[in-house]
Amino acid sequence: MKTYTIGIDIGGTTSVIGLVGSDGRIIERETVGTKKFSAPELFFERLSLIIRGFEPLRNGEALTGIGIGAPNGNFYNGTIEFAPNLEWKGIIPVVNLMKSHFQSVPVVLTNDANAAAIGEMIYGHAKNESDFIMITLGTGVGSGIVCGGKLVYGHDGFAGEIGHTIYDPNGRLCGCGRRGCLETYTSAGGILQTAKELLNKSNQPSKLRDYPISELTSKHIGEAAVQGDSIALEIFDFTARILALKLADSVAHTSPSSIYIFGGVAKAGDVLMNPLKKYFENFLLQIYKNKISLRLSGLPENDAAILGAAALIHQ
Amino acid sequence: MKTYTIGIDIGGTTSVIGLVGSDGRIIERETVGTKKFSAPELFFERLSLIIRGFEPLRNGEALTGIGIGAPNGNFYNGTIEFAPNLEWKGIIPVVNLMKSHFQSVPVVLTNDANAAAIGEMIYGHAKNESDFIMITLGTGVGSGIVCGGKLVYGHDGFAGEIGHTIYDPNGRLCGCGRRGCLETYTSAGGILQTAKELLNKSNQPSKLRDYPISELTSKHIGEAAVQGDSIALEIFDFTARILALKLADSVAHTSPSSIYIFGGVAKAGDVLMNPLKKYFENFLLQIYKNKISLRLSGLPENDAAILGAAALIHQ
Repeated sequence: MKTYTIGIDIGGTTSVIGLVGSDGRIIERETVGTKKFSAPELFFERLSLIIRGFEPLRNGEALTGIGIGAPNGNFYNGTIEFAPNLEWKGIIPVVNLMKSHFQSVPVVLTNDANAAAIGEMIYGHAKNESDFIMITLGTGVGSGIVCGGKLVYGHDGFAGEIGHTIYDPNGRLCGCGRRGCLETYTSAGGILQTAKELLNKSNQPSKLRDYPISELTSKHIGEAAVQGDSIALEIFDFTARILALKLADSVAHTSPSSIYIFGGVAKAGDVLMNPLKKYFENFLLQIYKNKISLRLSGLPENDAAILGAAALIHQ
Repeated sequence: MKTYTIGIDIGGTTSVIGLVGSDGRIIERETVGTKKFSAPELFFERLSLIIRGFEPLRNGEALTGIGIGAPNGNFYNGTIEFAPNLEWKGIIPVVNLMKSHFQSVPVVLTNDANAAAIGEMIYGHAKNESDFIMITLGTGVGSGIVCGGKLVYGHDGFAGEIGHTIYDPNGRLCGCGRRGCLETYTSAGGILQTAKELLNKSNQPSKLRDYPISELTSKHIGEAAVQGDSIALEIFDFTARILALKLADSVAHTSPSSIYIFGGVAKAGDVLMNPLKKYFENFLLQIYKNKISLRLSGLPENDAAILGAAALIHQ
């Protein structure tokens, strides 16, 4: 008999649910608008109906577990606590809500970046690695840290917030209320902020000036950089230097064999990765130089969230 | 029958060897001048004679293992690699050299800060903690990171170099060749550097001006601070703020329940710890606030190096 796992990625706007085969292929998937549900109870009821509707499960094939990745998802408590991007407020008992529909299978929750790290380990490039770090560059900057083959959860389940290490205590105001977090420079919004600052600082011609500043996106900047636009390249150089500096600090904590970069911002590819690798080697302590692989995640982008969540069941 | 472990701390100037009972008491100890030995072979021969001379072992009691803490000691390789403070150069095969005298017992090596962390877990305040960080403030700044009850060694055995995370990439030149490492501000030498800078910056009266600048030590500064000397207090305030900022970054990596501070600089006590705690809470991300204990190590200072090394055998 074949076995299947469910991977669920809960996002502020949309959530995706996938049925994953034991070979890591996504057999079926469905997308749900998260905001349509006024209460989490209604949302999880809908999810349970979708899951029961997946054909292999309707045909009696075995479900081995349900993995859930969510912003601020806490592995120990099985709850989402005060996620700024979700409309449901307070503490949401995610695992209990899901368990009320599926009593007999394990349900595991963690935050989305941790899920991506486990996904990289089970289905991506990190299959044979015991010590690596996953960095997700998107709306926020998240991370999952694996040491000795295990995800680091910390004493409270909240380990791995490299996006909130501080680059400059007098720097940009962060959504977390502090100043100068890595996230304020290397998230999609952080890169836009850098673009605005650099465009205002000079009159140098740039393709980026073709867009009203309010419509500029990190994707436009990536495209302009690929075409050789010098301001766009400068934006990525500035971003890469800050990320490299903080990743060198991360290496001094857990000495990983690889750091994987994932998320919307990573789609810029070489225009980000080339300066990132250069600065990273520069900033590393001597004992770490030339032995840490810094590369893009091996997870297929459209499948990563589902695979990461499903992988929680195999950890 | 009673059992004993040997704890050895190899230092640049002196090394200490202790016989430790199963209750964590040091039964016998001896000190050896490290620099007297022109080659590591001679040094380890001497150590083996000392160990065989300890009375319980002479009387046939069981030796369960030999733990060794040393600067740049590598757990995986059993070697000391390029330790700047040792006169022996290159790669020293510490475990093999010790094993040539004691074939039948386990011999374990790690760096001194890692040994201190394990010592804290086996014999100190961290007996019931799975996730904590040990910071040693002395000639250098070392650290040992424990996650899920295990010391983090990283893929190469070199994890836990928080002293070489970067506070300011344009800052003070570090012995490691880079600029602005935490160590350049919070080691004994870093504090002296701060003292010189602050004493030169103003004409404010201070007890510290009674010493020729070349004779000033971090101990003098600690004593002056305890007596209310305002420049001495400012030195610790400056030091504490930088340490707090970088420790908040460490928390964002592994979310420990405690951080323990150890080493010569920590002897300053409250004049360091009070501003450290204040700034630390300030710099912490909201989810970590008011739940991490920041305190002095529970290891008795004169015994810590031996106990830490001996504890390696119990990990």
